Amino acid sequence: MKAAGLVVEYNPFHNGHQYHLDQSLARTKADIAVGVMSGNFLQRGEPALVNKWARTKMALKAGVDLIVELPFVHAVQKAEYFSEAAILLLEELQCEWVCFGSEKGEIEPFTNTYALLAEHADLIDQQAKTFMNAGHSYPKAMALAYAELKKNYPDMLTLDQPNNILGFHYVSAILKNKLSIKPITIQRTGSGYHDAALPKDSIASATAIRKEITADGSLKDVARFLPGASYDVLRDYQEEMRLWHTWDLYWPYVKLKLLTTSPSALKDIYEMKEGLENRLVTAAQTSATFLEFMQKVKTKRYTWTRLQRLLTYLLMNITNDDIPHTLKPTYIRVLGFSQKGREYMQSLKKEKGHLLLTRPAAANDPILSIEQRAANVHASILPAEMWQKVQKREYQPPVII
Amino acid sequence: MKAAGLVVEYNPFHNGHQYHLDQSLARTKADIAVGVMSGNFLQRGEPALVNKWARTKMALKAGVDLIVELPFVHAVQKAEYFSEAAILLLEELQCEWVCFGSEKGEIEPFTNTYALLAEHADLIDQQAKTFMNAGHSYPKAMALAYAELKKNYPDMLTLDQPNNILGFHYVSAILKNKLSIKPITIQRTGSGYHDAALPKDSIASATAIRKEITADGSLKDVARFLPGASYDVLRDYQEEMRLWHTWDLYWPYVKLKLLTTSPSALKDIYEMKEGLENRLVTAAQTSATFLEFMQKVKTKRYTWTRLQRLLTYLLMNITNDDIPHTLKPTYIRVLGFSQKGREYMQSLKKEKGHLLLTRPAAANDPILSIEQRAANVHASILPAEMWQKVQKREYQPPVII
Repeated sequence: MKAAGLVVEYNPFHNGHQYHLDQSLARTKADIAVGVMSGNFLQRGEPALVNKWARTKMALKAGVDLIVELPFVHAVQKAEYFSEAAILLLEELQCEWVCFGSEKGEIEPFTNTYALLAEHADLIDQQAKTFMNAGHSYPKAMALAYAELKKNYPDMLTLDQPNNILGFHYVSAILKNKLSIKPITIQRTGSGYHDAALPKDSIASATAIRKEITADGSLKDVARFLPGASYDVLRDYQEEMRLWHTWDLYWPYVKLKLLTTSPSALKDIYEMKEGLENRLVTAAQTSATFLEFMQKVKTKRYTWTRLQRLLTYLLMNITNDDIPHTLKPTYIRVLGFSQKGREYMQSLKKEKGHLLLTRPAAANDPILSIEQRAANVHASILPAEMWQKVQKREYQPPVII
Repeated sequence: MKAAGLVVEYNPFHNGHQYHLDQSLARTKADIAVGVMSGNFLQRGEPALVNKWARTKMALKAGVDLIVELPFVHAVQKAEYFSEAAILLLEELQCEWVCFGSEKGEIEPFTNTYALLAEHADLIDQQAKTFMNAGHSYPKAMALAYAELKKNYPDMLTLDQPNNILGFHYVSAILKNKLSIKPITIQRTGSGYHDAALPKDSIASATAIRKEITADGSLKDVARFLPGASYDVLRDYQEEMRLWHTWDLYWPYVKLKLLTTSPSALKDIYEMKEGLENRLVTAAQTSATFLEFMQKVKTKRYTWTRLQRLLTYLLMNITNDDIPHTLKPTYIRVLGFSQKGREYMQSLKKEKGHLLLTRPAAANDPILSIEQRAANVHASILPAEMWQKVQKREYQPPVII
């Protein structure tokens, strides 16, 4: 059996994801699709709109055969780490290909760009430092340095689109680590990654879909952008949980923590540096809502995404000790599978069976214990009995369809 | 002007409190009544049903002339420390008397008991240790040792009533510190301190009143136990805040904290000892509600009250460093006053003016900063905008009637 790997968040699974999945299988003629998915918290430092079990179900119903979890410590990270950790997982899972979306759907610009950047690494570093000294954030400074180099090499990738950035890091991870997995890129269709408005056709960005769902809590205006099974899972989730997981609802926890913890203790939080702790405490004292707080703390240097990740670490109480030194997986947590996915796992058993984990009951891996913490924190905004129920879900078998 | 001092929590102010206030003024013929009141968290480790501003208003409307705050670090403490800190505050406020309720209304048993206990201190200590080794909690062991001594001295106080216990500690604090304030005791009328059922007459315990209010959220069944002004304050509070402050509502914060903090970090919390941290974490993992959790962690040794205080410290993030080494006040925080209260403060100005604090805006006293934390934590269960409003109240002038 040959597997096509996908790096996903499915927040929620929509028609654009369906298109990408179908194209990936068609292009590679793979027997199955394997998804590495962020768990309850996402790369950009946000709680997933619905928990990982609901998102796994959506993926399986749409035709993904196996969903494994990208651990929290690797998922809630800048694009570079997130991408490399995900690719390393797909390699461990012996996927033949990784299929990712990009604006143009050609793989050569990715590989060429990697080569050019390796060749000019010192120059890029030097120029990025100059831009950072001028007050730009690290990602912005890198982008500006990159743009300078691109003037001389116009065929280099356009790296101002999230999909291109992630794709570039996937390809880099493969080339850097000399992996056997092959990168394939599928041209994106429909709306841009960040587009906030709903388009007229049937493909909208996950951002736009979430915005619409959370604006009035209703699913009715987004039905046409979702496969029927996704819609059903979301509707069932809402009926059971009576809410969508958004930062606003976690804000009281973050605020209380900021207002009851000394700045010196806050400095123990991963990525809390450069006096940010004082800045956060001061803003928390005068902010009623999450939005108000974020607007107060955001700067060019401390981007929205970086701050969201930091607040996720704070909410989760993640310290430096919690972050492993390597991106290589120490286990592979299976969140769900189809019959074909089960067969694929059987075929992996001889070589990789010791890594596969379908029930974490007896696990004492520190990375996995953080997953249990994430499940707890994600569920903490639910009513007491529901929280307890979801907490227990963490120790039950994967989703099987 | 001569002042009668009262040590109060007024949670909420009811007819029994009115009787005690009126009797205190009548018996002493004092010009004014001064109340030392616990702030937003109470001696037995509970959030006050309504915040300190609402409770101050009830007290002033009932005829107390001056309400000062017993700091959190002294209020949320065992009876011995609570009582001594309160008495030291009343002494600083130059009160002529402290008036407390007791079962019999006679002061001699209190002073005699103090003398007998001083005389037999070693014997009591020794017997208490024996009872603790047999598995009893500290308070229970002390009570049993006390009962042994009382067999030989039948006139000693009956110390199984909270009012007698507090009264005994007030008198002890006065005699031990050789204070000039004089103890007066008023015989209690109506229901017992802890009685949970509502009686037929107009005096019910605060416990019974809270139980009735929080059971269905309604004030209608408790109106006959409250002065009209108390009723109005509670009704206005409910209309504005839409809730009563009970442990259930703070439970998600405590649970989240227990499930995201390592046991070694939990040990930094004041009074977290003897491996309690592991016991709490384990119970939190399997408890949906506060009640369920408490039933799991309670033992003979770790009494309900002791655990509630510990959870208050946890919620507030109180460490050993936060607790001052002395019970003597470093400032006197005024929460509210009447016209007569204002005149009394003027008369204190020459000697004690430097201690009186009516607006803590510029305060950098560490004890006062904990009061601000307590105000924040107490308000944290309110909707975002209301939380912010109550938080600001902390920096505004006292209640004046």
